[in-house]
Amino acid sequence: MRADASAADIEAVCARIRELGFSPHQLPGKTRVAIGITGNSGAIDPDLFARSPGIAEAVPVSKPWKLVSREVKPDHTVITLGGPPGAPATIGGGHFTVMAGPCAVESRDQLLTTARAVRAAGAKVLRGGAYKPRTSPYAFQGMKEQGLALLAEARAETGLPVITEIVDTRDVDVVAEHADVLQIGARNMQNFALLEAVGHVRKPVLLKRGLSATLQEWLMAAEYIVSKGNYQVILCERGIRTFETMTRNTLDLGAIPLLKRLTHLPVIVDPSHGTGDYRSVPPLARAAAALGADGLMIEVHPDPARALSDGPQSLTPAKFAALMDSVRAIAEVVGLVL
Amino acid sequence: MRADASAADIEAVCARIRELGFSPHQLPGKTRVAIGITGNSGAIDPDLFARSPGIAEAVPVSKPWKLVSREVKPDHTVITLGGPPGAPATIGGGHFTVMAGPCAVESRDQLLTTARAVRAAGAKVLRGGAYKPRTSPYAFQGMKEQGLALLAEARAETGLPVITEIVDTRDVDVVAEHADVLQIGARNMQNFALLEAVGHVRKPVLLKRGLSATLQEWLMAAEYIVSKGNYQVILCERGIRTFETMTRNTLDLGAIPLLKRLTHLPVIVDPSHGTGDYRSVPPLARAAAALGADGLMIEVHPDPARALSDGPQSLTPAKFAALMDSVRAIAEVVGLVL
Amino acid sequence: MRADASAADIEAVCARIRELGFSPHQLPGKTRVAIGITGNSGAIDPDLFARSPGIAEAVPVSKPWKLVSREVKPDHTVITLGGPPGAPATIGGGHFTVMAGPCAVESRDQLLTTARAVRAAGAKVLRGGAYKPRTSPYAFQGMKEQGLALLAEARAETGLPVITEIVDTRDVDVVAEHADVLQIGARNMQNFALLEAVGHVRKPVLLKRGLSATLQEWLMAAEYIVSKGNYQVILCERGIRTFETMTRNTLDLGAIPLLKRLTHLPVIVDPSHGTGDYRSVPPLARAAAALGADGLMIEVHPDPARALSDGPQSLTPAKFAALMDSVRAIAEVVGLVL
Amino acid sequence: MRADASAADIEAVCARIRELGFSPHQLPGKTRVAIGITGNSGAIDPDLFARSPGIAEAVPVSKPWKLVSREVKPDHTVITLGGPPGAPATIGGGHFTVMAGPCAVESRDQLLTTARAVRAAGAKVLRGGAYKPRTSPYAFQGMKEQGLALLAEARAETGLPVITEIVDTRDVDVVAEHADVLQIGARNMQNFALLEAVGHVRKPVLLKRGLSATLQEWLMAAEYIVSKGNYQVILCERGIRTFETMTRNTLDLGAIPLLKRLTHLPVIVDPSHGTGDYRSVPPLARAAAALGADGLMIEVHPDPARALSDGPQSLTPAKFAALMDSVRAIAEVVGLVL
Repeated sequence: MRADASAADIEAVCARIRELGFSPHQLPGKTRVAIGITGNSGAIDPDLFARSPGIAEAVPVSKPWKLVSREVKPDHTVITLGGPPGAPATIGGGHFTVMAGPCAVESRDQLLTTARAVRAAGAKVLRGGAYKPRTSPYAFQGMKEQGLALLAEARAETGLPVITEIVDTRDVDVVAEHADVLQIGARNMQNFALLEAVGHVRKPVLLKRGLSATLQEWLMAAEYIVSKGNYQVILCERGIRTFETMTRNTLDLGAIPLLKRLTHLPVIVDPSHGTGDYRSVPPLARAAAALGADGLMIEVHPDPARALSDGPQSLTPAKFAALMDSVRAIAEVVGLVL
Repeated sequence: MRADASAADIEAVCARIRELGFSPHQLPGKTRVAIGITGNSGAIDPDLFARSPGIAEAVPVSKPWKLVSREVKPDHTVITLGGPPGAPATIGGGHFTVMAGPCAVESRDQLLTTARAVRAAGAKVLRGGAYKPRTSPYAFQGMKEQGLALLAEARAETGLPVITEIVDTRDVDVVAEHADVLQIGARNMQNFALLEAVGHVRKPVLLKRGLSATLQEWLMAAEYIVSKGNYQVILCERGIRTFETMTRNTLDLGAIPLLKRLTHLPVIVDPSHGTGDYRSVPPLARAAAALGADGLMIEVHPDPARALSDGPQSLTPAKFAALMDSVRAIAEVVGLVL
Repeated sequence: MRADASAADIEAVCARIRELGFSPHQLPGKTRVAIGITGNSGAIDPDLFARSPGIAEAVPVSKPWKLVSREVKPDHTVITLGGPPGAPATIGGGHFTVMAGPCAVESRDQLLTTARAVRAAGAKVLRGGAYKPRTSPYAFQGMKEQGLALLAEARAETGLPVITEIVDTRDVDVVAEHADVLQIGARNMQNFALLEAVGHVRKPVLLKRGLSATLQEWLMAAEYIVSKGNYQVILCERGIRTFETMTRNTLDLGAIPLLKRLTHLPVIVDPSHGTGDYRSVPPLARAAAALGADGLMIEVHPDPARALSDGPQSLTPAKFAALMDSVRAIAEVVGLVL
Repeated sequence: MRADASAADIEAVCARIRELGFSPHQLPGKTRVAIGITGNSGAIDPDLFARSPGIAEAVPVSKPWKLVSREVKPDHTVITLGGPPGAPATIGGGHFTVMAGPCAVESRDQLLTTARAVRAAGAKVLRGGAYKPRTSPYAFQGMKEQGLALLAEARAETGLPVITEIVDTRDVDVVAEHADVLQIGARNMQNFALLEAVGHVRKPVLLKRGLSATLQEWLMAAEYIVSKGNYQVILCERGIRTFETMTRNTLDLGAIPLLKRLTHLPVIVDPSHGTGDYRSVPPLARAAAALGADGLMIEVHPDPARALSDGPQSLTPAKFAALMDSVRAIAEVVGLVL
């Protein structure tokens, strides 16, 4: 739609789409609204819309992902989360947003200590896992609802919006009630039932890339969420599985500039899982800023040696603060607002 | 336990394990019962059990997977499913069991035609997807509960037990009610909530290997199910993701002999997904029999060109019957009962 | 060319190709000769040859590999090596040929003991490395020319033709003088200088698949050799590199049926490198026969525990003899002549 | 050795090593010399050297790579190449050195135009392939010796030292005569004969990572060169092969900080091959600088659309100049000298 299209123009186009038996999706951008169409099985004649008032252009989409593509919506998607007074967390559109916190919520003290520290260093979102997907059934599985309550408490104290992982369709309601951003982990990237379930929620979703997911599959997974009406999706590159075993994963930073061309969704980077070693986290975080990613997700723990999960890749609060300084300097050079 | 251990001996050992604060798992084999212990956080002194009547040996397990390991239970796990009068489907322990049917249940006619044909050719289990995990939200997602009803009808007519995929924890009850074997697909191999849910069911589970799952991760996923008390797990190799793009997946047949050394669970092979091309299915099926796998899962469709999913890798009933003849000849050479 | 084409017909077509400025390649099959054309930069009009006597069909090739494709030559390539009186080693065209011997030639005694044993068990070709490509510069690098002399001695005694690896363009003459088949190892599959050099030799070449070579790259590597005029190329699948670390490599048996459709060259399987564990070699060898491969390459050592390289994947002579019995039974079922 | 060790002290230690039957390797660092020992088959007692004058410490090396490890030599290796008056190209030790030029030398005009442009923009080394390893035998194979002559001419005119690839042991002398740095390409990373051959040359070698080489294999390949006495080796990460097909390769930037901990050799990044798309080259180049790599290798062509190879990933001179500006800004932030 044109920037000067009225709400009535937009509604008229949506009504026309419904009349044809399809579903309209309003995708708001910085200055104008794009309307995506789903539910068609073949191509739709663009001329059907050529004369509707307020239409800028009718574009057939050439990719299997539609609503998340730049073709449908050239503008960046920008997501606003709330946050401390005067400093809402904004993701996308020129901001460089850092989410930080422990891998797992382990105790009230551990979480609050970390939350205060990362906030002081400049993080805008607090992360912390309450439901932990673990390779072994005998490993610590997370504090679950108790963890959610602690996250809510940490938000109340620090003002930081919180993000936490969701691993079961049956938990969608309780997690959506407590968290500001719902995280879909790498192992659930193609848990389509879960994608559909969070597609019906009206809270932002952070979708991690699967361990062996192609970019196309990842975008299709995002399309699952968006096609259900939840347009607030953040992509998070966290490393893929390759033959290399000296690093925990292979962080695919080359995917970032390509994704920025293919999709309007924000893309952030998780160097903690991407390398598995706290010593490599700061240089990779700087690289992500230099590349023009939209932010970072970083694991921070007050006592990494005693962490119940992911200790080797967690930064201490002091190392995290130092990292923020160097990332800030890089972000400035490339014109991003930290 | 020794082969001559009485029920009372076994119960006494289990009671002792509970008394120590751990969980006992009775794992029945051909001639004797193994008892696995979970819930311990460190090693348990084998001497604690040395004098209990009926004990053959107390073995500490060296692998991160415990209950599924050969160390705990040297005997093969054998699973019996029922099936046509006089011919129950038995999986493991020297049988070579073929599961066949369409990728997706598409209609009553399609399913029944296929079921009769695969039964006539010697298949012992009918496969058919009612809930389809698809890469695109716009692709056919399966007939869902209607598909389950058709599977039950096909079983009633042909006597073949049926296997179907489950993709959501919320569907466990309804699928367990209709199906004889619950399938966990490759994309859900590390959907731990789903693994736990089927671990509480008392029906066999077929666990496909994830696209990029290591053998260790696969065995740990099986351990999730078994540790919840469901000991009837069948592993299914269906190809992994590699750099090669001319085949849909890379069928890792070299994993089969290694798995047979590591675990007592039966292992079958899905050459349809393993290659993605119907022309390569028969030679790979013969290879699986020659290797000593415990069976096959094969996609068969009466009209592959019109299949709603996986047409290129589906065999016609005639080609399936010819394949069964050659597989039978190979199975005989290696001493497997088809 | 038609089966009844005369030598003069063939020569006339070749002359016509040269006249047009291109290179003709006579590729002999079981009953008729195919003539490949290289040196053109665009398509050649098939009509240019339509009326030449003896022509069966003029086929434009759609693949980037030309001379090795089934399109150019539908007949299998069959390679004859000589061998013991009355039993020449024939590779391709319905034979199942086993090459066996030590990874590396280590001593006269080790080589001759192994040679006699593998011959007695039914191997038709003796393998043994004289130049060893090793990951570490500090590991045993092979006996080099001394090893070649021992191979020649073993051939003289047993009548078995010998195959050995070549790792340097400067060694082509000396190796071609001693060996019956030149092996290009996985790490040199895209050593194009070496491929060209063996393309100028008139002895068969066994080309192993590179650790991360796609099938297309492998066929293009074979094309390098064939385009230089050496049409006797054998492909050898030896496992590819994937994320799995419990097996040395991932043996890509699914590649075999596809390759048999794409190329007329014989394809054999090396289960020793394909798995890295002697216990998995026999089942994978049986699988290769069941699939319809053209043969095997197997590592055998009289004392694997003391082998200077690849001990863990080497069979003892006794285990090799047992394997040959089971492979023979499978080969019979699928109609291959061992 | 201590910083104040005399030449006589160093020679005495080397003599002692030779006396023991081993080989000494003097590895010069910024302020002191390390002496590596090879030729031993087991551990050497550090006490053997404890009292030699000038010794700082005798360290047993725990890794399979020895001479290239940080354990043997904690100081960075710094390589000086010459270059334009007043601006020698220095690689390692705090410099960020950019090598640029066309994929292949195609003509005098193409090479000189590019050489002038990249020099003006701040490149310190000119790259250009004379011998081109190509997947297809029918593709352009490079200008060979004519290309070497043009490189020498470009150096004479611009003062830029030149780097070019070597693909055959028989070409080592002629390439070493013309080039300032010898490049070993990804496909030849484990062409051990070639590694040994360049190990005997006394010119720097740039060793690209193989397409599926682990970091350990890459370091062992470097060790091949260094163990022959050529200590001037530069590592170049150029992307690895993974399942992802939307990018030409997956650039493994996470390897850089790990390599900097493991080895004293300089490590540069080739984003051109790493992504395969010129649009992704500038952000990845900035990321490499932010990470603390020692430099870049970038493909530049005056007319990418007409390039005989790698056109899609080549930058125009104008785009290259713009990239240099942004890289310079990042390098400054992280304290590297461009």
